[in-house]
Amino acid sequence: MELVEKFQEFKDYLRKIDYLSNALALAEWDMRVYMPKRGIEARSDMVTYISGEVYKLQTSDRMREYIEYFEGVSDLDDVMKAAVKNCRKIYDQTKKIPEDRYREFIKVASRSGTAWEEAKEKADFSIFQPYLEKVTEFKREFIGYWGYEGDRYNTLLDFFEPGITVEKLDEVFGQLKKAIVEILGKIQNSRVEVSTAVFSKYFPKQQQAEFNTMLLKKVGYDFETGRMDESVHPFTTDFGNKDVRITTHYYENEFRSALFSCLHEGGHGIYEQDIPDDLEGTLLDGGASMGIHESQSRFYENIIGRSLSFWKYFYPEIKRNFKQFDGLSLEDFYKGINRVEPSLVRIEADELTYSLHIIIRYEIEKELINGRVEVKDLPKLWNAKYKEYLGVEPSNDAEGVLQDVHWSDGSFGYFPSYALGNLYGAQFLGRMNKDIPDLFERVEKGDFEVIHKWLRDNIHRHGAVYEPSELIKTVTGEELKADYFIKYLYDKYSKIYEF
Amino acid sequence: MELVEKFQEFKDYLRKIDYLSNALALAEWDMRVYMPKRGIEARSDMVTYISGEVYKLQTSDRMREYIEYFEGVSDLDDVMKAAVKNCRKIYDQTKKIPEDRYREFIKVASRSGTAWEEAKEKADFSIFQPYLEKVTEFKREFIGYWGYEGDRYNTLLDFFEPGITVEKLDEVFGQLKKAIVEILGKIQNSRVEVSTAVFSKYFPKQQQAEFNTMLLKKVGYDFETGRMDESVHPFTTDFGNKDVRITTHYYENEFRSALFSCLHEGGHGIYEQDIPDDLEGTLLDGGASMGIHESQSRFYENIIGRSLSFWKYFYPEIKRNFKQFDGLSLEDFYKGINRVEPSLVRIEADELTYSLHIIIRYEIEKELINGRVEVKDLPKLWNAKYKEYLGVEPSNDAEGVLQDVHWSDGSFGYFPSYALGNLYGAQFLGRMNKDIPDLFERVEKGDFEVIHKWLRDNIHRHGAVYEPSELIKTVTGEELKADYFIKYLYDKYSKIYEF
Repeated sequence: MELVEKFQEFKDYLRKIDYLSNALALAEWDMRVYMPKRGIEARSDMVTYISGEVYKLQTSDRMREYIEYFEGVSDLDDVMKAAVKNCRKIYDQTKKIPEDRYREFIKVASRSGTAWEEAKEKADFSIFQPYLEKVTEFKREFIGYWGYEGDRYNTLLDFFEPGITVEKLDEVFGQLKKAIVEILGKIQNSRVEVSTAVFSKYFPKQQQAEFNTMLLKKVGYDFETGRMDESVHPFTTDFGNKDVRITTHYYENEFRSALFSCLHEGGHGIYEQDIPDDLEGTLLDGGASMGIHESQSRFYENIIGRSLSFWKYFYPEIKRNFKQFDGLSLEDFYKGINRVEPSLVRIEADELTYSLHIIIRYEIEKELINGRVEVKDLPKLWNAKYKEYLGVEPSNDAEGVLQDVHWSDGSFGYFPSYALGNLYGAQFLGRMNKDIPDLFERVEKGDFEVIHKWLRDNIHRHGAVYEPSELIKTVTGEELKADYFIKYLYDKYSKIYEF
Repeated sequence: MELVEKFQEFKDYLRKIDYLSNALALAEWDMRVYMPKRGIEARSDMVTYISGEVYKLQTSDRMREYIEYFEGVSDLDDVMKAAVKNCRKIYDQTKKIPEDRYREFIKVASRSGTAWEEAKEKADFSIFQPYLEKVTEFKREFIGYWGYEGDRYNTLLDFFEPGITVEKLDEVFGQLKKAIVEILGKIQNSRVEVSTAVFSKYFPKQQQAEFNTMLLKKVGYDFETGRMDESVHPFTTDFGNKDVRITTHYYENEFRSALFSCLHEGGHGIYEQDIPDDLEGTLLDGGASMGIHESQSRFYENIIGRSLSFWKYFYPEIKRNFKQFDGLSLEDFYKGINRVEPSLVRIEADELTYSLHIIIRYEIEKELINGRVEVKDLPKLWNAKYKEYLGVEPSNDAEGVLQDVHWSDGSFGYFPSYALGNLYGAQFLGRMNKDIPDLFERVEKGDFEVIHKWLRDNIHRHGAVYEPSELIKTVTGEELKADYFIKYLYDKYSKIYEF
């Protein structure tokens, strides 16, 4: 009984962090969606202050006492264990770093972001280089404080994808790279012509919004516990499982963009809406990891949303709503949304080549963190890899090494999650196909509840209680493998491009 | 130099309160404007937690030390003096009450709100009565702790309208009541017929929104530091002077509602946008009082927005945008928006009779707080006064004594501010007319900057540094008087109704 009471006390403490984090998330959502232009300065100050209060609670002596107390107790249940482990991780992440070094890093990271923006705008890497060098040095230094097992990069990976190692990534990404390059070669030699011209017709925003909202409702995104707004870049956030916010961005001359971003963010959103009430406020009330989260968004966007079965059901609806598609067959529509075209920019990549963009970043980060390459070498290295894997070459660094914000604040180790999402998703699909043999026949009939239920029961209901490696093992009975995704890609594209 | 440093430290402390208050205001804005339905529970918990943190900062020992330190210093400037005085007020307001009594009151007040909602819905005062009795008892008890000078009700008035007393209100409200009743009599005997039928045509929301936005920009509401959204009841909030939010509610079969609510909230919004940067974060970065705030909203809504000059300028614009007004003359439009019709519900009242609704509430509150009437007598008393002053009688308590939320949490002393806003506004107008002799000729030409500038220079720039009584004295050279508003009403309605 004493343990239960003590844990309740701990939960009450965590709840405070949760309240402030939700206030913070709301402030950030609003900043990106509705805030008047000139509100930015006051908002940033407020966010800085509240972040500081969250930080204080996460790293307080009281927090340390809770962690140490519960670490000394042997009979914790899974939730309690995970809650303590999670707090330990956050605690160590900052407390192991000398305070003055951490503060110095925060300063540099913030300036680095501004430098990156300017560098990207002017397509001039030299503006960003000195900042990226400092940020990189800090990260290398911090790994010294944090410690590492095996590869130094493992420590960074662990923040985003607990349990994933360089050894594992080298294996699965190695296989994946080989397969994608091979499939890409076949596609480039295919005689099949895929046109996407129709998507560039005029599609009024309101018309898109109505259709996408209908789609989201149909696949299971709940508008009583969620909403959808517009922002420059689509994103998902939440303030608990009953208040989830996704955003999209409409292009009136590009139909696919908002459509698939809605399904993508909808996948994230459904995950958050499915988190059980009893995890709320434990700091485990989110996805298991960045990669598992991404597996859900990509599942809805690609595995379901870019499948032929999905459009067998929805294409008549498209035809009814959009005269723009008059005369276009389902097959050509389906091919159009699955066209493969190697490109320079990650966020514009198709489903096949997307992972190559990630693998390039992974390979570079790993070398950089281990000191085997230096910041000054990055543009050359970047361009060489794009040339080698994708056959394209940036004409300047803005569409090359400067395209992503992630490195500017030292978020090394983040990128792999995106590609891991693809691998997790396909492996989940393998299991789902066994559990629901007529899965895609159901999709053809518009039955999305069966998918939603499977994801809820197997993945969503656990929140962040289990690490991704445990979760995938429990759900699929296997360790993470690249095979499922590779087979999925091969099956899909061999049909479309007839090879 | 030491004083300056110490005050800076104090300001840094106040800044924390400001950050949390802004987070809270954002959470409340979002709750009323965009929050998904089922987010309410988590949001309320978050708001309760953060409110508690604000309360802690406002009533901490550290706060007491600051207050006592600065109260002992003689050479504070106006801003410092006001900041300390304001903090003392908030500190005493709760600290003078025994903690257990305060906590008990908060519980009762919250349940009382729910009871009021139900009572109003069922038009059954007996549901609300026991709660209102408790809330009233608490307020009477609290006045004992707080102390009072002259009338017990003065203490409550002081929270909303510092410096205003029952003595003063009896004087100005007494004159005002007499005048309104007299003017109302003349109007009811007038042969002039005013039709408002045209306003009930169909006005699509989008069409209204575009026109009202144009209007707001024109009168000076800045959309780079503000926005406008929709909510059930219009309101204004802000998170600093660079992020002000107003809302409105569109009725597609009632043109006037959103139009004048936009001008009203716009007046509040302009006030907040004009607060100078150096008051930000001092807790003086808002209006001088509820009543002064209301004077600004009513100035834009009524004195300017319901003037003939205003529509001489804007009516052609109305004609261009709204075919619904084809064939209606400017004069008839002007009369229509100024039609007087005694009614039961405060928030639907016209400019003339509005103050009578307030005076009734004031008279009742004063008696109730002094124990000269009891809660059980309120419905009868209410109906009698409506009959006497306005000549109308509620058919049930939902459109009578239950119509407003204010009493449910014990906000006695709040109502008078609404009518004070009318008095302040007309008195400001008196001064403004002297300073700008061609004021309304300018309005006719669409020059609203001259008004905005006068309000900014004379009122807005002071934030909450001066109490309303000081402010009105400084700006107009006189104490608060009812004469200006009475003359304004007489002039306006004698022309419209030809008496």
